Amino acid sequence: MRSLLLSLALLTALPAPAAPPDAEASDPARLGWMKGAPPPAERTIRFADGSYADFPAWRWSVSHFRELMPTVQVSRGLGAPRALPRTERRDIDGLRFTPLGGGEPITWAQSLALNYTDGIVVLHRGRIVYERYAGALTEEGQHGLMSVTKSFTGLLGAVLVAEGTLDPARRVDHYVPELASSAFGDATVRQLLDMTTGIRFSEDYADPKADVWQHAQAGNPLPKPADYQGPRSYFEFLRTVQAQGRHGEAFGYKTANSDALGWVIARASGQSVAELLSQRLWRRIGAEQDAYFTVDSIGTPFAGGGLNAGLRDLARMGELLRNGGRLGGQQIIPRAAVDDIRRGGSKADFEKAGYALLRGWSYRNMWWVTHNEHGAYMARGVHGQALYIDPKAEMVIARLASHPTAGNAANDPTSLPAYHALARHLMARP
Amino acid sequence: MRSLLLSLALLTALPAPAAPPDAEASDPARLGWMKGAPPPAERTIRFADGSYADFPAWRWSVSHFRELMPTVQVSRGLGAPRALPRTERRDIDGLRFTPLGGGEPITWAQSLALNYTDGIVVLHRGRIVYERYAGALTEEGQHGLMSVTKSFTGLLGAVLVAEGTLDPARRVDHYVPELASSAFGDATVRQLLDMTTGIRFSEDYADPKADVWQHAQAGNPLPKPADYQGPRSYFEFLRTVQAQGRHGEAFGYKTANSDALGWVIARASGQSVAELLSQRLWRRIGAEQDAYFTVDSIGTPFAGGGLNAGLRDLARMGELLRNGGRLGGQQIIPRAAVDDIRRGGSKADFEKAGYALLRGWSYRNMWWVTHNEHGAYMARGVHGQALYIDPKAEMVIARLASHPTAGNAANDPTSLPAYHALARHLMARP
Repeated sequence: MRSLLLSLALLTALPAPAAPPDAEASDPARLGWMKGAPPPAERTIRFADGSYADFPAWRWSVSHFRELMPTVQVSRGLGAPRALPRTERRDIDGLRFTPLGGGEPITWAQSLALNYTDGIVVLHRGRIVYERYAGALTEEGQHGLMSVTKSFTGLLGAVLVAEGTLDPARRVDHYVPELASSAFGDATVRQLLDMTTGIRFSEDYADPKADVWQHAQAGNPLPKPADYQGPRSYFEFLRTVQAQGRHGEAFGYKTANSDALGWVIARASGQSVAELLSQRLWRRIGAEQDAYFTVDSIGTPFAGGGLNAGLRDLARMGELLRNGGRLGGQQIIPRAAVDDIRRGGSKADFEKAGYALLRGWSYRNMWWVTHNEHGAYMARGVHGQALYIDPKAEMVIARLASHPTAGNAANDPTSLPAYHALARHLMARP
Repeated sequence: MRSLLLSLALLTALPAPAAPPDAEASDPARLGWMKGAPPPAERTIRFADGSYADFPAWRWSVSHFRELMPTVQVSRGLGAPRALPRTERRDIDGLRFTPLGGGEPITWAQSLALNYTDGIVVLHRGRIVYERYAGALTEEGQHGLMSVTKSFTGLLGAVLVAEGTLDPARRVDHYVPELASSAFGDATVRQLLDMTTGIRFSEDYADPKADVWQHAQAGNPLPKPADYQGPRSYFEFLRTVQAQGRHGEAFGYKTANSDALGWVIARASGQSVAELLSQRLWRRIGAEQDAYFTVDSIGTPFAGGGLNAGLRDLARMGELLRNGGRLGGQQIIPRAAVDDIRRGGSKADFEKAGYALLRGWSYRNMWWVTHNEHGAYMARGVHGQALYIDPKAEMVIARLASHPTAGNAANDPTSLPAYHALARHLMARP
C-alpha cells in the first residue's frame, strides 16, 4: 500500500525528511547504492516497496527511473548528434552572490552542493562555458526532470496553437469529450495551458487524502490492491477531477492540468506527448541521447512529470528556445510559440498564488516567466531541476538536482540569484 | 497470479495457441494495439494481467518491452553512429528454397511472413543488401532478442576468458561463493559457457511446477503475493538450482546457465552484463541505438533472455564477429574469443540433446554452431530471432520475429534453408 501511496507522485514531489545529510554525505557513489551483484540488502533500492523514494536513496533513483518502472522512448532518431561547441571558463566557480533573503554572499561552486546539484551546464552564446556532474548522473545518463516535463508539454501545446492545430479558445471537452463532466470540461485550452483552471487538486503531500495521492495511485503501473475502486490510469483520474473556484481567475499550480493538456494534445495531434516530443523536438535538436517518459499501466506517458533526459539535451532545448525556435538556420518550431512563452502570462493571476520568492513573475504555456530586466524564463522541477533561459545575457542554464526538500522554495534562494549573477557576469565579461 | 506465472519466462518461451492467425491477420498495426488515447479496452496491453503475452498482442509486446516493465540501458555512448554502407539487391525476394523436411519450394519473401518476421537485414561483405520491417518494429525501435541474449552473455564470457579475467577451468563457486551449495557450485566456467552442466531446470512450459516458472517468478519485477516464499531475484533463484545428471557429459539447453554465467561475469569483471556489454561492444561497434535489458526487482539484468536491441545494431554485432572481432582496423574484442565460438563445441555432447533439425551441430560459448560447409554459426531466440553468420559467404543475417510458437522447431524449417540458400546465391552472384 505504501508503494501505491508513494508511487509516481514522487516524480513531482517528496516530503522532506527531518535532517537530511548534505550533498557530500548523501552522494550516491559514496554510499554505494545498487553496487554489487547483488547489492548489499541495505543498499538495494526497489520500486514496489517505495524504498526508491527515501532520501538519500532518492539521489540514485532520480538518475535511474527506467530501472524502477516501465518507460516509453522519446527517440532522438538515428543520425549523428549536433555537437555543442565548448569554451570552458574558470571564472564561474568563484562568482559570488547574495542568496535571496539576504545573508552572507556565497560562491557559485558552493551553491551547487547546497542545492544537491547532480549536473549543470551553462551555455553562453551557444557555447558550453561550464559543465559539472555529481550524484548518480553522468553525461551518458538520463535524469528525472519532474515538473520541467510540464514546460515541455506546454511547449508542445503552444506549438500546436501556433500552427492552428489547437484552438486555445476552445473548451477542453471539444478535444476530449470524456472530460465533459469533469471540472476540465468547460475550461478553455488557454486556461489549461496557463493553469488558470478552477479545479480541486490538492498537492498537500502531508495529507494522505490529498488528490495528488489519488492521481499517483491511478498512474502507478503496479497492480492495484484487490479492493481498489479508484481510477486505474491518468486518463481515468482526470475524468474524476472536481471543480473548485472558477476558471480564468487565478494561477493555481496543479499537475493535473498538465496531464489534461497531454490528453488534449494526444487527441488534437493524434500522437502521444512522447511521440510528438520526439517528432517535433528530440529528433530535430541534434540530441545525443534518447529521452523517455514513465508510463502508467496502459502506457500513457506522464505528461505532468515523467520525462527523463540527458543534461546536455536539456541544454539543447533551452538553446532552441533562446534562438526563437531556430537551429542551424532552420525554424524548428514556430517563433510565435516561443514568443508567446517569453511574453508571459497575467501577473495579476500569478500574484494570487502567493509565491513569496517569485514576486512579479507569471506563468505561460507551463513556463515560469521572471519578467526581470533580462526577460528570463524557466522550467522548474520540484527537486531543483531547472532550464533557465536569459535572452538578454544570451545564456542558457540546464540544471538537474535531487534536493531532499520537494519544493523550489528550498533551492530558489541559492539558485535564482546565482543564475542572474552569472548572467550579469557573462554580459560584463563576455 | 497469472501475471507471476506468465511473467518473464515469456521472454524465453510462450505456449503456442491452438490456431494462431497468420502474419497478415496478426499484424499489430492492422489490429491497432495500443493506438489511441487511451487505446480501446480490447486493444489495451498490460503487463500485470499477463495480456502482453497473449498472441497476437505479443507481436506488439516484443517491440515494446520497456513500456511494460523496468529496464536498464546499454549505452551506445554519445558519438556518431557508424554507417552501414548499402547496396540493396532486388534478386533476394524471389530466391527459392526447399523447407527442411521437404515439400514444395517457397520463396525468400514467402518465408518472411511464414515466420512472422518483424525485421530482417542481410549484410554481404559488410554492405546492407536487404532490409525489411514488419509487425510493430521500425528501424528506430528495439525488439526483444530473447535467447539471442544468451549468445551475447556467452560472448562476453568468451572475451573475459580470452583476456585471462575468467579461467574456464575454475569452478563456478570460485567466482560466486553463494552458488557453492547449488548445482552450479562444482561445475566449471567452461561447462557453464557450453551448457554441459548437470542441473535440474525444466523448461516444460506446460508444467506449472516446471523450474522455468519459478525462475520467472523470481525474476518478475512485480511485487510478490503475500504468501510467496520462493526466491525473489534471479540470483536468489540460482542458489536453489539442484543437480540432475553429471556436469560435462551432455549439452542441455537451460536458461539458468546463462543467468549463472551473468553472475560469474559480474563478479569477475566488476560490471553487470549490461555495463560490460555497453563498454566492450555497444559503444565500440558504432551502434545507432542504445540497447536495454529487462531487470528483476533488484535491478539485475536478465542475462538469459532480457536484451532488446535495434535490428541494424544486431547486424553490426554479427559483422564484428564475421571480421574476427575487428572493426575499422581496430581489434575490438580478442580474435581468440571469436575463433573459439567458430570452432564450436563437442558434437557428441550436442547429439545427446536430440535436436532432430540440428544434426551435426554443436554449442559453444552459448552460440549454435552449424558445422556446415560454410562454417556458419548463430544466435537463436525462441520466437525466431536470429543472428546468423556465414564466414565463407561473407554474409550476416539479423532477423527479429514474433512467431506464435515458442520453439525454433516451428520456424527452422523455413528459415535455416533460406539462410543457406541465400549464402550460396550471394557466393554465386556476388
